[in-house]
Amino acid sequence: MDIGEFSAMAESAVAAREVIIAFVHCQITYSGRAEAFLGRGDRVLLIKADSTVIIHQPEGSNPINYMRPGSAVTFEKVDQHVMMHVMNSGDKSFLDVEIFRVYDVASRKLEDGQKQDLAGSERDMSDHIRDNPTLIGNDFHPISREEQTDVGFIDVFGHDKQGHFVVVECKRITASLMAVDQLRRYVERVKQIKGTQVVTGVLAAPSITPNARDMLESYGFRYAHVQPPMRLERWHRDQKKIFEY
Amino acid sequence: MDIGEFSAMAESAVAAREVIIAFVHCQITYSGRAEAFLGRGDRVLLIKADSTVIIHQPEGSNPINYMRPGSAVTFEKVDQHVMMHVMNSGDKSFLDVEIFRVYDVASRKLEDGQKQDLAGSERDMSDHIRDNPTLIGNDFHPISREEQTDVGFIDVFGHDKQGHFVVVECKRITASLMAVDQLRRYVERVKQIKGTQVVTGVLAAPSITPNARDMLESYGFRYAHVQPPMRLERWHRDQKKIFEY
Repeated sequence: MDIGEFSAMAESAVAAREVIIAFVHCQITYSGRAEAFLGRGDRVLLIKADSTVIIHQPEGSNPINYMRPGSAVTFEKVDQHVMMHVMNSGDKSFLDVEIFRVYDVASRKLEDGQKQDLAGSERDMSDHIRDNPTLIGNDFHPISREEQTDVGFIDVFGHDKQGHFVVVECKRITASLMAVDQLRRYVERVKQIKGTQVVTGVLAAPSITPNARDMLESYGFRYAHVQPPMRLERWHRDQKKIFEY
Repeated sequence: MDIGEFSAMAESAVAAREVIIAFVHCQITYSGRAEAFLGRGDRVLLIKADSTVIIHQPEGSNPINYMRPGSAVTFEKVDQHVMMHVMNSGDKSFLDVEIFRVYDVASRKLEDGQKQDLAGSERDMSDHIRDNPTLIGNDFHPISREEQTDVGFIDVFGHDKQGHFVVVECKRITASLMAVDQLRRYVERVKQIKGTQVVTGVLAAPSITPNARDMLESYGFRYAHVQPPMRLERWHRDQKKIFEY
């Protein structure tokens, strides 16, 4: 595609809030959350209806560059190239993409009113624990979920049969040192607020790293092996067959 | 595009390690790190050369679904639709995308040997602090960078003129409660290892949340206002003009 045509087409697509996808040969300079330069190569360019800009290299999970929703996107002809300027005044970041070739491009108004129905989140885990308190211990009595404190939200807050407070932090994937830090922060704040030294900390997760486990135990907390609940079980069972092909 | 054609084209593109981009009308079921269902709507489908699969809704920064590199991607004709099955045996996750319509599609072998030249990272900040120790304090003497401990890497480790140890944690964006937790974890480990109670904790960042600042001070640590270094300064200066248009 002629580079001038691309510039005109992309400009009107952005104005019409269409989504644009393209394979381009480009060079990238970024300034904002960091400073970055990426020399010439082939990449995937995605401009969304809300002016989010995402650039991917041919491999890897993460975009090599992205600009948040609500960016200003403009195109400027420079010699035989197109310079795409993207600016986000919210986080004061700038992206300049110098486009030398456009291999393929498409733009279209996309209609999508769907929200994802997600199960197995930390919120689902805390619901699950409230409904099945023995997952934490035989004498655990939940009082509240998502209890707000000035240092964050406690996933499940409760007490044991002696009336001592119990703080539960949920992780739906392997719990790390960060999770132990977080639990400790809540336990200490509960001790302060309630004026007691007897508060139990429990980290509920499907697994935990060895370092996190050591740190957890050194603080006198404990680990509870809890799998995030999976609502869509039928599908999960069906999928297992794939490994049997 | 005919849905059967799409299936054949996508299959051979995946086999040839080409990158595929498409606008599709689809419905998605995911099982793995969580369970998720997303009803019918228009989306952007990206399949990379390393079989990473990324799906975006028309708005927002984050993909609505993704599958890690090295996934197995297969296409199956079901009635008038195509079912794309993606399976990652590494993290035992599954993605089923039922594709009802393909609006636009392109596939291509992309060549990109570039690595991003990044400045302003946490590593750059710790270099910057080592080279400019007064950013932390007039009597700060750095000893090492990225000092490894069993509870993580200390960004900059040093001492003051009285010989007391100083632990510096760097954040290149606003420091949060998590950053304070991390600093505290390192300070406490240094106290244990070195057998001293006098260890100074410093959180170096361009800004800090009020809650994090309160917590930091309650632990007796302090905040140092440090901007991540920006190497590509010329470009940064040029870009400022955009706001003056």
